[in-house]
Amino acid sequence: AMHPGVVPQYAEAEPMGTEEMEGFDWERERAEQKRILLPLRRPVSSLFMPESLVERFAMENQMLTARLQPEQRDFYRLPMTVDHERYHSLWPLPPEFDATPTTYAAQCYKVTSTKDGIHYVLRRVTGNHSEKYAAKAIAPWIRIHQLASGSHPNIVAVRTVFESQDFDEVKSLCLIYDYHPSAIPLAAEYQMGDAKSGMPLRGVVSEQILWSYLNQLVTALTTVHPQGLAVMNINPYRVLTQSHRLRVNFCGLSEAIQDVPRGMSVEELQFNDLKDMCRVLMSVACRCHVNDANAEKAAFEVMRQTYSEDLVGLIKLVLFTPHKKLPTAWEIQSSVWHRLVDELHNAYAHIDYLNNQLAKEHQNGRLFSLIAKLGFINERPEHRSNPKWSETGDRYLCKLLRDFIFHTVDESGRPQIDLGHVVSCLNKLDAASPEKTLLTSRNNDSLLIVSYKELNRCITSAFQELRDAANAEVKTNGPQHS
Amino acid sequence: AMHPGVVPQYAEAEPMGTEEMEGFDWERERAEQKRILLPLRRPVSSLFMPESLVERFAMENQMLTARLQPEQRDFYRLPMTVDHERYHSLWPLPPEFDATPTTYAAQCYKVTSTKDGIHYVLRRVTGNHSEKYAAKAIAPWIRIHQLASGSHPNIVAVRTVFESQDFDEVKSLCLIYDYHPSAIPLAAEYQMGDAKSGMPLRGVVSEQILWSYLNQLVTALTTVHPQGLAVMNINPYRVLTQSHRLRVNFCGLSEAIQDVPRGMSVEELQFNDLKDMCRVLMSVACRCHVNDANAEKAAFEVMRQTYSEDLVGLIKLVLFTPHKKLPTAWEIQSSVWHRLVDELHNAYAHIDYLNNQLAKEHQNGRLFSLIAKLGFINERPEHRSNPKWSETGDRYLCKLLRDFIFHTVDESGRPQIDLGHVVSCLNKLDAASPEKTLLTSRNNDSLLIVSYKELNRCITSAFQELRDAANAEVKTNGPQHS
Repeated sequence: AMHPGVVPQYAEAEPMGTEEMEGFDWERERAEQKRILLPLRRPVSSLFMPESLVERFAMENQMLTARLQPEQRDFYRLPMTVDHERYHSLWPLPPEFDATPTTYAAQCYKVTSTKDGIHYVLRRVTGNHSEKYAAKAIAPWIRIHQLASGSHPNIVAVRTVFESQDFDEVKSLCLIYDYHPSAIPLAAEYQMGDAKSGMPLRGVVSEQILWSYLNQLVTALTTVHPQGLAVMNINPYRVLTQSHRLRVNFCGLSEAIQDVPRGMSVEELQFNDLKDMCRVLMSVACRCHVNDANAEKAAFEVMRQTYSEDLVGLIKLVLFTPHKKLPTAWEIQSSVWHRLVDELHNAYAHIDYLNNQLAKEHQNGRLFSLIAKLGFINERPEHRSNPKWSETGDRYLCKLLRDFIFHTVDESGRPQIDLGHVVSCLNKLDAASPEKTLLTSRNNDSLLIVSYKELNRCITSAFQELRDAANAEVKTNGPQHS
Repeated sequence: AMHPGVVPQYAEAEPMGTEEMEGFDWERERAEQKRILLPLRRPVSSLFMPESLVERFAMENQMLTARLQPEQRDFYRLPMTVDHERYHSLWPLPPEFDATPTTYAAQCYKVTSTKDGIHYVLRRVTGNHSEKYAAKAIAPWIRIHQLASGSHPNIVAVRTVFESQDFDEVKSLCLIYDYHPSAIPLAAEYQMGDAKSGMPLRGVVSEQILWSYLNQLVTALTTVHPQGLAVMNINPYRVLTQSHRLRVNFCGLSEAIQDVPRGMSVEELQFNDLKDMCRVLMSVACRCHVNDANAEKAAFEVMRQTYSEDLVGLIKLVLFTPHKKLPTAWEIQSSVWHRLVDELHNAYAHIDYLNNQLAKEHQNGRLFSLIAKLGFINERPEHRSNPKWSETGDRYLCKLLRDFIFHTVDESGRPQIDLGHVVSCLNKLDAASPEKTLLTSRNNDSLLIVSYKELNRCITSAFQELRDAANAEVKTNGPQHS
């Protein structure tokens, strides 16, 4: 959406005056040299992603690609697919994800959908539950994410529910949730202990983080409550965190299996949500699971020592006000709206940060697909029964280019192992640059001067030939000869 | 910050019972094969960034790397460095960036700092201005960004100011601002025309975008005004946009060159800021620069036809209320705080989106360097004068792996051109997965069952050998023979 007029008009060369064409202008030449030689003082590390982010993605990748191996007992215990082959590659999630103190047996698995290839979390509850009832129960939760154009930022999206007998012939109900590979429960992130084994003297996280968490949980509740729903039993095991983004997990599960406290109105359940939310914040601040009145009291004292009156007052208001007089989630949010501005600033800063990282990495995809194309072409044993395919025509140039990119040696025969050289060549190749390069045959018999543009054409045409062959109908008279 | 206990305990193999070791378990083998063959149905396009984002980064890259060429007149007109060589590589920014209707001559350049290698915008104002006065004037603006831990999300950060005679011996004052390469003025983004040449019948942007813009501009003002400052003369040329993020540009410039309206109090200037903000929103909605009372009236009618009473009422309130009764920026923001929640949701969604893109590109980067390693090893003509190096030992397995990754054909000899297969193999290779794969020699004489872990070791050791050779001292007795 850029205005055409904004594209700089400086790219085109201006015709030089005749007086400037006479003789060689040393002044000018020196100036140019100096310009070009001015050092790039930026440290090399600034060209790459910071280690923390690399580690996070590596961990996510590990979680995403993890599969059961035949040596593992679960490999044969678990079904290969569930729900009529709709999901496969079950992989049990670490026990932390099941640790919600519930009264029913449940297990969590990472699964892969055969429909879209995306990973999900399958939460299985054994027992005789009605699929029809469950589907009706989670429908409003599905709607919440549809309204939030895909998924609510602070609630893990539930996608579907089905009955299954794939597990050991035992009937169970399975709910499918979005999978956030590097998100872990708050209880694990803050290594929460038992409240009875003691509290720290001061809060362990900054007030800023607590406000951010409060904002995020309130945002979830202001979305959920007006729909006539309640989250029910928010606790540090059910709230996932990933770089300080909170997401409430397993919403809709209690309703689906009819595990809802009897004799309580929706309003009462919603008030409980607010109180639970405060307990989660106290649990984070005191690094222990605050789950009874004694722990509440002790944690409240710790918070009074550490945090502002604003924050402590709000928690006191919610925790110790009787139900009837309690403010709604909306009223709480409106009373601390100016904290939303801080949260928004943080979010903007995060966006800027990610954009900067992405700007550094954005060429990886292009270079990867280019190098893979060369891989498909070079040294192909035969194509259309022609064993010389990869050594002739356009492919020969591709081969010489490959040698130039990877197999250059210096005058004393030492290999040049320089990723910078590889990247620079591929960039010129990708841009179909008119720049020319010198390719040498292996026996040094022939030297070829070719432009990257021409080499780009060679790769494109050779790859297209392979792709056409790959998509061709199989002829009854056997493979064609070229 | 991951709890050690959360790392899945499933990675280690369980010792197999003796009853499982007897004979070959076909059942199990079939199960394993079926698991492995389950298709990766995810479309290949999902492995890469969307084109729009690639284009944006390519454009940013172009802007960042743009340099004057010797053929261009400015190459010799502009100084090579300014401020005692602190900035170099001046590149004139497109005229849109200067187009603020000001009474003083000003030019904008992209410059590179020799100190940190980062690009900045240098805004130059000719004339005899006091550097000392200017430095004092921009100090509170610098503080605003320090308070926002680096830079305010909706204000372009000013960094420093200096006097310079580097330009044609003419004295000028230079202000250094952050450079946001793909941000362009709202006037250019919305191709705003003159209000006199007509208005559209309906607003041209969605109400949602207008609320977002309002939020962002108000956020800037609620930061600026409490510091006793005013932006002064906010207009569609001074507000930059980049994927709907707004940033007010050139703050502090008017104060630095003492171009401040006389006889007006700070409060009055701040009230003008609020009115200017509304005019910017109307300019966006009507795609023309609303800068006089007639245009205001016409634009207001257009907005009444298109947008909600909420939005129109707010603009009416600010535009047509006399100064004394006008609400402050803070009061305006508090009256529309619930719009902040929408803005926050959008920001979170954007963060999730960017994280996904970054994860993809990170993966592509890893896979690229892996494939490049294979490139250095495979088909190397000779190493240490051994022409068979790339065909023997670990390198032979690397070659068979390459054939498996790239040169698989189906039963009728058609090449399998499947990037999904390449990515999946390389991912397992990178993760040194214990999963085994079947490699076939070219003459089909030998079949090898090798784990990706072993193949990873082969590549690592072969590549290390090359790297050692590359870094080796050159011996006087010529290249070594192995």
